Amino acid sequence: MIILVMNAGSSSLKYQLYNMSNEAVLAHGSVERIGMDSSIVTHETSGKPEVRVVSEILDHNAAVKKVSEMLTHREHGVLSSLDEIKAVGHRVVHGGESFKQSTLVTPEVKEEIRRLFDLAPLHNPPAMMGITAVETNMPTISQVVVFDTAFHQTMPQETFLYPIPMVLYRRHKIRRYGFHGTSHNYVSQQAAIKLGRSLDSLKMITCHIGNGASCAAIVNGRSYDTSMGLTPLEGLMMGTRSGDLDPAIVPFTMNKEELTLNEVNSMLNKHSGLQAISGISSDMREITESMNEGDKQAKLAFDMYTYRLRKYIGAYTAGMNGLDVLVFTAGIGENSVAVRKAVCENLTFLGVQLDEERNEVRSREARLISTDDSRVSVMVVPTNEELLIARDTYQLVKQFA
Amino acid sequence: MIILVMNAGSSSLKYQLYNMSNEAVLAHGSVERIGMDSSIVTHETSGKPEVRVVSEILDHNAAVKKVSEMLTHREHGVLSSLDEIKAVGHRVVHGGESFKQSTLVTPEVKEEIRRLFDLAPLHNPPAMMGITAVETNMPTISQVVVFDTAFHQTMPQETFLYPIPMVLYRRHKIRRYGFHGTSHNYVSQQAAIKLGRSLDSLKMITCHIGNGASCAAIVNGRSYDTSMGLTPLEGLMMGTRSGDLDPAIVPFTMNKEELTLNEVNSMLNKHSGLQAISGISSDMREITESMNEGDKQAKLAFDMYTYRLRKYIGAYTAGMNGLDVLVFTAGIGENSVAVRKAVCENLTFLGVQLDEERNEVRSREARLISTDDSRVSVMVVPTNEELLIARDTYQLVKQFA
Repeated sequence: MIILVMNAGSSSLKYQLYNMSNEAVLAHGSVERIGMDSSIVTHETSGKPEVRVVSEILDHNAAVKKVSEMLTHREHGVLSSLDEIKAVGHRVVHGGESFKQSTLVTPEVKEEIRRLFDLAPLHNPPAMMGITAVETNMPTISQVVVFDTAFHQTMPQETFLYPIPMVLYRRHKIRRYGFHGTSHNYVSQQAAIKLGRSLDSLKMITCHIGNGASCAAIVNGRSYDTSMGLTPLEGLMMGTRSGDLDPAIVPFTMNKEELTLNEVNSMLNKHSGLQAISGISSDMREITESMNEGDKQAKLAFDMYTYRLRKYIGAYTAGMNGLDVLVFTAGIGENSVAVRKAVCENLTFLGVQLDEERNEVRSREARLISTDDSRVSVMVVPTNEELLIARDTYQLVKQFA
Repeated sequence: MIILVMNAGSSSLKYQLYNMSNEAVLAHGSVERIGMDSSIVTHETSGKPEVRVVSEILDHNAAVKKVSEMLTHREHGVLSSLDEIKAVGHRVVHGGESFKQSTLVTPEVKEEIRRLFDLAPLHNPPAMMGITAVETNMPTISQVVVFDTAFHQTMPQETFLYPIPMVLYRRHKIRRYGFHGTSHNYVSQQAAIKLGRSLDSLKMITCHIGNGASCAAIVNGRSYDTSMGLTPLEGLMMGTRSGDLDPAIVPFTMNKEELTLNEVNSMLNKHSGLQAISGISSDMREITESMNEGDKQAKLAFDMYTYRLRKYIGAYTAGMNGLDVLVFTAGIGENSVAVRKAVCENLTFLGVQLDEERNEVRSREARLISTDDSRVSVMVVPTNEELLIARDTYQLVKQFA
């Protein structure tokens, strides 16, 4: 069965085409700068060289049309007809409280996603554009939506509610949702498989640390708490996002710097985090390099980043009253030997024993990086949100077919 | 040596008179409703019945005058002359980065406290009024200022800085300060004494949980991190304060509820926390009672409160990479058997073993409530900020005398 996975942003569309019989990626690519001058289409069919085209792509509808052309292109394509695609799976950022799992797209589902625009004004509308564009271009194909928030819908009230008037939850659904759910879900499953253990008996913390970053406390395979909240601003220090801070800093800064609320919001999302402290970059590779060359601000950014991550690991361990498995994933989690080391060498109180040699190895496979007798299994598990979207889509289409 | 301790709020003045030879409280009292109709003066000299007077107290100057009269009153007083008072020690909330310890009041010190009004607009001005009033009423007496923030000035950069543009720290000193420092300092000292151990070798977490609440990670007797931040809003869930939340909730709520920034700020400080979730009270006693009678919102408030506290204990244990002593203090910490139990019974991964019988005992003495073989010593230590202010004042006056 062939499944197309789509991730639509406000001006971009990424896609992967899967053959689900062996989960192989047949082709993948992206359309960037949708609606701008000279959009860029990149397409790669497995085993063939990448194709790059500059074109005029006015909207998501045109983008999906272009993708269809690429996939069925005589030379660069991989399909003889679009009919070979059984279903399209979409990444949707916010599923609110309505969507506790992936689901087939129906008129009711679309209506509900529209109702959630308020909670994710930057992310849900483009996803909806992607869905509509597929309807237009491939009218007979089933569609599935996979939500970043769905995995975290198992959180209990005491972890998802904020200590603010209950009316704000009842009236506006202001609560912790959490994001990166597909990734936390995927890597927790992979970790358990790799360990040869059942998720049902594990207390796990998954650290999805890339440009955005969140960690999740997972009890018996179910999300129990996570660091992002109503929005992706809360929680860990990130590339350009602050993460946690005294909420009173918002009015204080507005007042002192004569900024509007939007300007402060933008500052906290786009000009904070690693970027703000290092003064160098939002990229952990550059920060680690500068730190190793003796740059003090880079060292400070690194120390704050790892300290704040360590605090979350401690917090969730206390939340679950124990920890069996600690997983690192995403750009920094998978690649930064230094971050993993700095975090783990200060968790010896938990019985964490990092194996420094294992930690140095680079690979695209899930692997253990703690010693064999470490009380907590520390792992690096490459994330693959697209594959999980393809799997969920496959399961739903198979089930309802 | 006789020391007078003063704690001036915007419309109140509390005082204690100490004989430092044995640290006995000779008299104590308060003036409430300063500047309002019918101010209330309460005064009690040790061993005598409490006196309560309704009077017209227009300002802090008049309040200090009234206190002077009470202390030297023929019938209710305890001093034959104000000259017996060697020094006055004042509680000052915010010492910024300037004051790393208690200090004698000089013109420069007063000027610096004034410069810090910005950081504590509600708290520092009345403290200054108290200082000025003492100058007027007891012109020859030495004065000392003891700061709530001073103890936390040992925090390293990576714990006190926020991941926001460095210019906000450089220009406006936006950083974590922490509060309740006098209490965290006092109870950490008392805990070490009670354990017969040196603070220099201990990793400690002190939970000052009263109406306001903060916890502190204390390494070798020095504050390493604390949960309150730029303001007392950050950190733990409190009686009416939210503590930590997604900073994006501020603009989201303003938008949804059409509130001003001040209104949201007021909501987070005065109408959140235990009060907001329970819908009953900001008082943990009432919440525990209602919970025990089956009230679900009270149970939720209790669970959120203890969960969030437990997360901080975990976070700081990870921050310090270990924990030797866990201290509960202030109203809830000293009195709530249920809160201590709920927190500790989910910290067994740290080797915390609560002794349920010891936990039930009520006393005004510092005491161990964990079992003898608990890996972490859990203690209840009644706080006494006034005594620490008196001690600091005594030490400074003795030293500079």
